[in-house]
Amino acid sequence: MQKSLLENINSPEALRLLSQKDLPKLAQELRKFIINIVATKEGHLGASLGVVELTIALHYVFNTPEDQLIWDVGHQAYGHKILTGRKDIFHTNRQLGGISGFPNRAESTYDTFGVGHASTSISAALGMAIASRLKGDLEKQHIAVIGDASIAGGMAFEGLNHAGVSKANLLVILNDNAIGIDPSVGALKMYLTNVKKGTQKQDNIFEALNFDYSGPINGHDMDAVISELERLKTVQGPKFLHIITTKGKGLKQAEKDQVKYHAPGKFDAKTGDLAAKSTEIQAPKYQDVFGHTIVELAKNNKKIVGITPAMPTGSSLKYMMESMPDRAFDVGIAEQHAVTLAAGMATQGIIPFCNIYSTFLQRAYDQIIHDVALQNLPVIFCLDRAGLVGEDGATHHGVYDLSYLRCIPNLIIFAPRNEIELRNIMYTAQLGLDHPIAIRYPRGRGKTIDWKQPLSKINIGEGVQLKQGENCAILSIGNMAYNVSEAIENLNISHYDMRFVKPLDETLLHHICKNYSTIVTVEDNSINGGFGSAVLEFMALHNYKNNMKILGIPDAFIEHGKVTELQESIGLDFGSLKRFIESLIVF
Amino acid sequence: MQKSLLENINSPEALRLLSQKDLPKLAQELRKFIINIVATKEGHLGASLGVVELTIALHYVFNTPEDQLIWDVGHQAYGHKILTGRKDIFHTNRQLGGISGFPNRAESTYDTFGVGHASTSISAALGMAIASRLKGDLEKQHIAVIGDASIAGGMAFEGLNHAGVSKANLLVILNDNAIGIDPSVGALKMYLTNVKKGTQKQDNIFEALNFDYSGPINGHDMDAVISELERLKTVQGPKFLHIITTKGKGLKQAEKDQVKYHAPGKFDAKTGDLAAKSTEIQAPKYQDVFGHTIVELAKNNKKIVGITPAMPTGSSLKYMMESMPDRAFDVGIAEQHAVTLAAGMATQGIIPFCNIYSTFLQRAYDQIIHDVALQNLPVIFCLDRAGLVGEDGATHHGVYDLSYLRCIPNLIIFAPRNEIELRNIMYTAQLGLDHPIAIRYPRGRGKTIDWKQPLSKINIGEGVQLKQGENCAILSIGNMAYNVSEAIENLNISHYDMRFVKPLDETLLHHICKNYSTIVTVEDNSINGGFGSAVLEFMALHNYKNNMKILGIPDAFIEHGKVTELQESIGLDFGSLKRFIESLIVF
Repeated sequence: MQKSLLENINSPEALRLLSQKDLPKLAQELRKFIINIVATKEGHLGASLGVVELTIALHYVFNTPEDQLIWDVGHQAYGHKILTGRKDIFHTNRQLGGISGFPNRAESTYDTFGVGHASTSISAALGMAIASRLKGDLEKQHIAVIGDASIAGGMAFEGLNHAGVSKANLLVILNDNAIGIDPSVGALKMYLTNVKKGTQKQDNIFEALNFDYSGPINGHDMDAVISELERLKTVQGPKFLHIITTKGKGLKQAEKDQVKYHAPGKFDAKTGDLAAKSTEIQAPKYQDVFGHTIVELAKNNKKIVGITPAMPTGSSLKYMMESMPDRAFDVGIAEQHAVTLAAGMATQGIIPFCNIYSTFLQRAYDQIIHDVALQNLPVIFCLDRAGLVGEDGATHHGVYDLSYLRCIPNLIIFAPRNEIELRNIMYTAQLGLDHPIAIRYPRGRGKTIDWKQPLSKINIGEGVQLKQGENCAILSIGNMAYNVSEAIENLNISHYDMRFVKPLDETLLHHICKNYSTIVTVEDNSINGGFGSAVLEFMALHNYKNNMKILGIPDAFIEHGKVTELQESIGLDFGSLKRFIESLIVF
Repeated sequence: MQKSLLENINSPEALRLLSQKDLPKLAQELRKFIINIVATKEGHLGASLGVVELTIALHYVFNTPEDQLIWDVGHQAYGHKILTGRKDIFHTNRQLGGISGFPNRAESTYDTFGVGHASTSISAALGMAIASRLKGDLEKQHIAVIGDASIAGGMAFEGLNHAGVSKANLLVILNDNAIGIDPSVGALKMYLTNVKKGTQKQDNIFEALNFDYSGPINGHDMDAVISELERLKTVQGPKFLHIITTKGKGLKQAEKDQVKYHAPGKFDAKTGDLAAKSTEIQAPKYQDVFGHTIVELAKNNKKIVGITPAMPTGSSLKYMMESMPDRAFDVGIAEQHAVTLAAGMATQGIIPFCNIYSTFLQRAYDQIIHDVALQNLPVIFCLDRAGLVGEDGATHHGVYDLSYLRCIPNLIIFAPRNEIELRNIMYTAQLGLDHPIAIRYPRGRGKTIDWKQPLSKINIGEGVQLKQGENCAILSIGNMAYNVSEAIENLNISHYDMRFVKPLDETLLHHICKNYSTIVTVEDNSINGGFGSAVLEFMALHNYKNNMKILGIPDAFIEHGKVTELQESIGLDFGSLKRFIESLIVF
């Protein structure tokens, strides 16, 4: 058996001591290392396997970390992490206290820019490149590696548009594998496909934008990639390298089912077979409640359409895309467009369900205000992954939506506490509302096995009481109701699910303020400006002076880890809630 | 003298009864009509003059309002408004109770989509076009008219990318006049220039994106435009017409100085001469305080750069662009890119002042959270036009920033109450902060004639007392301090300028809560989640039970009008404040 190369590579410096002819062997070892660890520890697999050669070549050719390397989104950066000193802790990936699943400036000087949301790399790299010019450093290289799904995001175009007229020393590498998490879509994807096939005879978009374009080249041909990077290193100004790779490269099943192996969960490192699913009957994922319910509703209501920006699988809109392809739209990584597209449809009497993860809706904030709410168009926003999302960490927690949405006039905001409430609010919304509505629900599974109950209408702005007690009332939003219920199981305390963050159930709030000396609000949103804040505003307006405590996400970024672990760390798990509430009662 | 044609045109139906040969004459009349009214009533001039022929041609050829016509941004829609039934009320443009300066669905069925922020038209029109297909209507036309500055915004690219693979009946008309409010920038602009000059031999970006491209044609040649529109009307699917126009067409000075005549204020309708400026010594515009102070600071601190997304004139960054062109960047309509570019620079020790209007920063919300605050990069955001902006109305008021920024960890939020405070916080920020900061200041002029005082440092998180009184304390933010000062002039009441919305001056707040039975907060931001809400959260945390009232922007969209008129309408003028505070004291 040959000696392992990877064993002795703990930095790019060590890598650069290898002979170029050894690099393909190193690539094989790196691939195997990634597969072995992700197979048991879970994580994003396919993207990193696809750029193993590119990763090695970049660190081999460029003088990282002096030369600045940015991975767009960062799903593909496992190889980069392993080669830059984190091999021995790579098994802690995405765990509480372990390394982040994404590049992170706090973690390594090789992670020059934190990522997680798509299409930021060109802007960030250009900023660095301009900084270098200002400092008189014309040698330093600045490299953005961006996938074909991410480069279709509008922000990436803005970066290209600026970079093309700059003299900045910027290299944009398009990692073209025709897929993001789901297959890429759009006219740019079609264009890139034509380029690859050689049928795009004339028009080169990137040359038109004033980039020095080269490619497409095979991204798995180590020598070709290295030789092209060596050449580009000597070219000044904005340059563009188009490489073709295969997502999941090196693991047969991952190459074949690229969507499933984006983040496959546990699998057999040798065979690639996915771990057997539990045969236990489980409650559904919220996303599937959305995905199945929209199909159910759309069968009876021809006006319904579904929109997702590049998350057909993650949002489960795929079920509608399969059964009603004309009425379900994957618009690519384009949250801004998704929202205004929905607004345009709504002007014509169409009922759009626009499904966007809470954290990604931040990308379309202006469009919600300006194109939807100002015109009071009844778009139905479904905000998946609201609250703490777990292992994806700080870049993906959906813990600001209640704050940033609550100040928008005309908007209804609802948080279902369980699967049945999610179904019923979807049913209610498509019956026809006078306003747009944002429905925010969590990542992962609910707790209701028998979730497919007959649909019933929810009265807009109406909260519900879940438990009757004395002195103290807990007001929760969304599935925080579960932790609260558990926390107060043996306490003589009332519990209300307010359901609507906006409009507040004022009748119920008057009742609560008049009957309980102490009120506690519980939410998985920032304490700053969130649901509890709304209750405080109500109380101030009506001169209520009850004791009032807000429990929620503190004013700090929350790292990665299991949701339960993260809840514990900030006092939102049932045990912490119980202790806090007990201390209040004594007080 | 010939009979007026325009006199009898009160709808596109009447327009369509004219002979095509009469249309150039109508164009002359329409131009004159616009000039005459804008000369005395003020408003946006140049953009509408540039599309007079296009406007007439569109309504002549297409069956508006059945066919859906969307004007991107809407500065250019005056001719459209005049031809679609609003000729007789056009003189009320932008006034309280009058018509809006932008297309507005509530105003006319011909205004199919409300606009005001750039780059939305393609998405909205595509949404309408897809809706028509779903309804089985293949005849209906959907037209987005978008300028060359707006089409460079990332959102427009997202729309094109989706539209190119749709079969939707969409016509995108690029109104290419090489200028937005300021001259267009970027690689796309260079590309379009090459197309016009005929030097762009091969690459056609729009064809590459699968559009049926035609042009460029002369947008002032009525017959050419009509004939091309007639042809395109019969073409199914996504199509793209490139027309060349001159902003300000028909008024010599407006053609010559296109930036100044974008919104020239009052001028002589015959000569085009601008109204003489007041010779009175005036306090400066806040934007000029920013514009001159950044130059002053940048002379001493070589790390400072300035960034504006397409607002060099409006932000007054133009002064720095003139005196230090290498260090001041107009990145075009690209707020997302502007913010992440700044973040990239900040990683390299550069100190970026990123100047974005409050309302447009909504476009870069995710980038502030994700690329700046999460990485705790000390970017300095200067948010011009915060609060009520006046005649631009609901689409432009900057009344959400305190709410949407306050939930972002690591971010400092400061509102200067006058010009001197703006200068001093800019000075303080560039000395080096441990966090990013958002400095939000109003549109228009301040009140400090002698504003160019020596610079001094502001302690982060420190508020100031402006007046000492009893029982009641008014806490204001930003220049609302003026209205408050006037309101309480003769009242025995304390007044604090809290200055920092985040971090709050907790020492001062403890003092206030312990010494005054009643507290009133005053802000020109939404009451929902804004500054007052922050004070409530502080009080709840520390068990304070003072009477507390929040005055600010109510939960509704505020229309256009003079700032003073708008303040009166919502109780934020000094008279209303005075009455409210007096009523509290009695209470």
